[in-house]
Amino acid sequence: MPQAPVLSIDAFGGDNSPEIVIEGIEHFLTAHDHSGNVKFILHGDSEKLRPLLERAPLTDAYSTIQHTDTAIDMETKPSQALRRGKGTSMWNTIESVKKGEAILAVSAGNTGALMAMSKLQLRMKAGVQRPAIAASWPRVEGMCVVLDVGANIECDAAQLTEFAVLGEAYFRAIYNKESPTVGLLNVGTEDLKGNAVIKAAHQRLFESELDINYIGYVEGNDIAMGTADVIVTDGFTGNIALKTAEGTAKLVGSFLSEALQGSAWSKFTSFLNMRALKKMKTSIDPRNANGGVFLGLNGIVVKSHGGTDAIGFSNALNIALGLAESDFLEQIEETLLRLHDEDDNIGFIA
Amino acid sequence: MPQAPVLSIDAFGGDNSPEIVIEGIEHFLTAHDHSGNVKFILHGDSEKLRPLLERAPLTDAYSTIQHTDTAIDMETKPSQALRRGKGTSMWNTIESVKKGEAILAVSAGNTGALMAMSKLQLRMKAGVQRPAIAASWPRVEGMCVVLDVGANIECDAAQLTEFAVLGEAYFRAIYNKESPTVGLLNVGTEDLKGNAVIKAAHQRLFESELDINYIGYVEGNDIAMGTADVIVTDGFTGNIALKTAEGTAKLVGSFLSEALQGSAWSKFTSFLNMRALKKMKTSIDPRNANGGVFLGLNGIVVKSHGGTDAIGFSNALNIALGLAESDFLEQIEETLLRLHDEDDNIGFIA
Repeated sequence: MPQAPVLSIDAFGGDNSPEIVIEGIEHFLTAHDHSGNVKFILHGDSEKLRPLLERAPLTDAYSTIQHTDTAIDMETKPSQALRRGKGTSMWNTIESVKKGEAILAVSAGNTGALMAMSKLQLRMKAGVQRPAIAASWPRVEGMCVVLDVGANIECDAAQLTEFAVLGEAYFRAIYNKESPTVGLLNVGTEDLKGNAVIKAAHQRLFESELDINYIGYVEGNDIAMGTADVIVTDGFTGNIALKTAEGTAKLVGSFLSEALQGSAWSKFTSFLNMRALKKMKTSIDPRNANGGVFLGLNGIVVKSHGGTDAIGFSNALNIALGLAESDFLEQIEETLLRLHDEDDNIGFIA
Repeated sequence: MPQAPVLSIDAFGGDNSPEIVIEGIEHFLTAHDHSGNVKFILHGDSEKLRPLLERAPLTDAYSTIQHTDTAIDMETKPSQALRRGKGTSMWNTIESVKKGEAILAVSAGNTGALMAMSKLQLRMKAGVQRPAIAASWPRVEGMCVVLDVGANIECDAAQLTEFAVLGEAYFRAIYNKESPTVGLLNVGTEDLKGNAVIKAAHQRLFESELDINYIGYVEGNDIAMGTADVIVTDGFTGNIALKTAEGTAKLVGSFLSEALQGSAWSKFTSFLNMRALKKMKTSIDPRNANGGVFLGLNGIVVKSHGGTDAIGFSNALNIALGLAESDFLEQIEETLLRLHDEDDNIGFIA
């Protein structure tokens, strides 16, 4: 029997930690019956964690605590986190991966600090400049993956090409699809659209002999419509697109509630139809898409939304376990090597 | 009694012209009882228009036809449109504004061609580099305005500052709000977020002594949440945000339909609750936000979505009439002059 993968958990990261972290793990173990398939190292203050574990018997059974009484708060700047962060729950969470005690790290803490510490401790894959953050995005059928959603505010064409490689391997790993389609986000699908960086990345991807199923430019509406499995963009555009979609889904949800609660009759008929409406609410629940992944490091770091609840945190663990059970890191290692060889051969400078 | 404003209409622009254009005007006149408050010049083939006007008596009563038998199609490139476009229905629609026969132009035709012809014929306001396209965007209460949504793929800080001035005056003109709030779209609200262009525009807007109610950075989710009345961004980001929101609204709508039609029981209870669900559908109907406006020209050009229907076209006319009845052009003239004076005084180079 293969050994159960070990996930390293920052129990003191995020707005409502450590409570939602422990409840999230318990929910994950209960709902998906993962007991025995996965183990956890919980980083944080053991005195505060013990009483929580008493109410979370499955988590208690499959976890060990590595004590530390310091943590990074949401306001700490990345530079401060690097100077003073050693020994905090976040630092130790990543260190467990570096030491080989765990296969990947999960934190709902401060994104900038997590990114800086991950880079410092795990280092980038050879040739990769900065990690990209990949987000899962609901679409008509299942999920797609969008990257970068915020790590790289300005990107060159070489980075966008790397994102395509990283995102493609990531999608394959978590959704088990042989040859996922990859699109480049642009303001139109004609060749003459976009800026110089996007055009260069477009040409590079088209000419590449890597086995990437590149389908060309896609537009904003294509994300939710499911035109491509993986959508590549710079971190500025990706972050704004992601938050715009979240805002839109929230707006539509509030219009729906308003419409259904407008009159006593509406309330009554909505009550009769509660199951269908619940199903719909689940489809657009942002908690189901929780869990951004830092790609391009020598190790895997999963970032949960800081303000999520136990169900959201449990979803981030779902993504984490999918990655832990795949050969994602070996696959991208190999593809990135081939990409950079190709770059050298064609003298590609973005 | 003041004279009724005259709108110049490209009757042969858009996917389903001239039918939806004539039906759209008729719907506009019927639904809003604008008969007598507005007149139209219809540009296009009179032989094809006459039978349509027989079925649209109000449109017939308040319109005159200016005949031309050529039109710009959706595939024509802007450069071709400039070389060969003279005398087409689109060209003549803009020319009517230039000649002073009409107060503004409305077309559902090819955006690139309309932009190029508008610039050539109407010219930019002094100091403005390129027009911006402003879009109306549904939010929790009413609408907000986002610009640019696609005319300027790359923008400098001076342009973003101009967009703030143009958008603020536009919002005041169509929604009659004294001091609308203006936000700059970014990946976070902290001062250190964003790229150099955005930071420069942010500082410029904060230090300006123009009467702009600038509230600082806003994020993607703030658009639909209604944090600001006017949201300023470059045309690349704005276009992707707009289409991402459209895709998300469509996705949520399809989840809703699916949920409500899942079982006979769902269908039955949805039927009972049809009025509430219809109200909700109206709230997110993209036709209600139809009508982008080119800002920064010596004249007003309203661009309807090319694939819209009569109701969508009628909504573009709503926006057009709101502008025609306001003193928008005089207002921005004055504010732009003061902006550029201020730029000169502080030696602002983006």
